[in-house]
Amino acid sequence: MNSIDICYSPELIGLYSLKEKIVVVVDILRATSCITTGIAHGVKSITPFESLEACIAMKEKGYYIAGERGGQKVEGFDIGNSPFSYMEEYLIGEKIAITTTNGTVAIEKSKEASKIVIGSFLNISAIASYLIRQKSDVLFFCAGWKGRISLEDTLFAGALTNMLESDFDFDDDSVMMAHSLYVKEENNILKTIQNSSHAKRLKKFDVTKDIEFCLTRDKYNVVPIVIGDEIVAF
Amino acid sequence: MNSIDICYSPELIGLYSLKEKIVVVVDILRATSCITTGIAHGVKSITPFESLEACIAMKEKGYYIAGERGGQKVEGFDIGNSPFSYMEEYLIGEKIAITTTNGTVAIEKSKEASKIVIGSFLNISAIASYLIRQKSDVLFFCAGWKGRISLEDTLFAGALTNMLESDFDFDDDSVMMAHSLYVKEENNILKTIQNSSHAKRLKKFDVTKDIEFCLTRDKYNVVPIVIGDEIVAF
Repeated sequence: MNSIDICYSPELIGLYSLKEKIVVVVDILRATSCITTGIAHGVKSITPFESLEACIAMKEKGYYIAGERGGQKVEGFDIGNSPFSYMEEYLIGEKIAITTTNGTVAIEKSKEASKIVIGSFLNISAIASYLIRQKSDVLFFCAGWKGRISLEDTLFAGALTNMLESDFDFDDDSVMMAHSLYVKEENNILKTIQNSSHAKRLKKFDVTKDIEFCLTRDKYNVVPIVIGDEIVAF
Repeated sequence: MNSIDICYSPELIGLYSLKEKIVVVVDILRATSCITTGIAHGVKSITPFESLEACIAMKEKGYYIAGERGGQKVEGFDIGNSPFSYMEEYLIGEKIAITTTNGTVAIEKSKEASKIVIGSFLNISAIASYLIRQKSDVLFFCAGWKGRISLEDTLFAGALTNMLESDFDFDDDSVMMAHSLYVKEENNILKTIQNSSHAKRLKKFDVTKDIEFCLTRDKYNVVPIVIGDEIVAF
C-alpha cells in the first residue's frame, strides 16, 4: 500500500523527500480554501507568488491580483483572502495571481513533488477520491502560520487521513497525531477551530463567516492541481 | 498568568524567543529519561555535547562518556542510552559527558533561556511543582527525531500542560494540540507509544523494558537543571 506522511510547517519541508510523491498543500484559513473556491467558480487559473512585488507585476499582464499579509488584503490588490471574493462573476474565465502569508510559500516549496494539489474541507472528498485513484505516496503539507503549526491545517490532515485509512498505510508519528486529534474533535471542529490561534488573530477582521465557510465539507467537487506555474482544475 | 508554549522540533526553535523563559527539554525515548535517572541516582553532573568527538575528549578529564546514535550505544563509550545503565553504583558522585541523536541538540539550542530544566515522565510532578513556583513563562522543547515531531515527546508536553492547567495560560495551537492528544490518550499512553515511530525504530534493539520504564510517572522527585555547561540536581 502507498503511504501518507504529514509535514506541519514549511520550516520542516527539507526533512521530507518530495520526489515521486503527490503533495496536498493545506492552508485552511484561508489560502487553499480560496483557491478551491475560485477554481470551482470558474476562475481559469491561479498562479502563486511568494513576493508581493512579483504578484503586482502580473497586473500588467492582464491578471487580477490577490494579496494577503497578516490576515488582511493588501492595499491596491483586487482580491483579498476571503473565499467569498473568489465567487464573483467577473472572475469567470480570468487569471488570478496570488500571494499570501503562508499558503503560497508552501506551494513554492513543493516544486519537487510529482504532483501538487490544493486541499481544503470544501473539496475534501474530491481530494480523497483523487488520491485513491493515483496510487502514489502522498504528503500533506500544512502551511501553518509563519512557520508554526496550526490547528486547522492539522485537523484537515487528520480528516483526510481518516478518509484514506483503508487505502493507505500510515505509521509515522506525525500522521498518528493528526488522525488521533481529528477523531477526538470530529464532532466539534467549528468550535475547536474558533478557539485556534489563527481564528483569534482573524477575529478583529470580522471573518466569522469566512471561517464557517472554510470548514464546510464537500461544497465543491473539484481538484485544483498545479500545472507548470498555474493552478487549474484537474 | 504566565504562559506555556511548545516547540515540536529543534528545526523550529528559531521561531521562539527563549529570553526570560524557562525551557523544559523533553526527549522521552530516551535522553531526558536517562539524565533524570542519573541525577536521581547520585551522578554528580551530566554535560551534554552535540558531537561524538567533543564527548570522547572528556574521557581524559575523568568523565564517564555516554554516547548514542540512531538508538544504539556508540562503540568505545562507557554508557549507552538505557536508563538502567545510569543507575549503576560506580556512577555515584561521578561526572558524565553525554551525546545523543536528538536530546543533546535540543539542550545546546536552548542556551538563550533564563533556565533550562530536564523533563521526563519519571519526574513530571517535580517539574510541574518547580514551574508553578518559578512564576515565569515556559517553553516545552521537544527534541523529536532528526527534526521530526515525536509522539512520546508530544504526549509528555500534553501531560505536563494538563498538570499546569490552572496555573498557566495556554492558547497557542501547539499547546492545544498536545493537550487534546494527551486527554484522548491518557489511559492508553504505553500502548500509544509502543506504536510510535521511535518505539518501532527501537524494537530491533530489544528495549521494551526501557520504554516501559521511561513512561513511569514520578519515579523520582528531582529537577535536573543546566548550570553553566553541566546538568545538576536543582
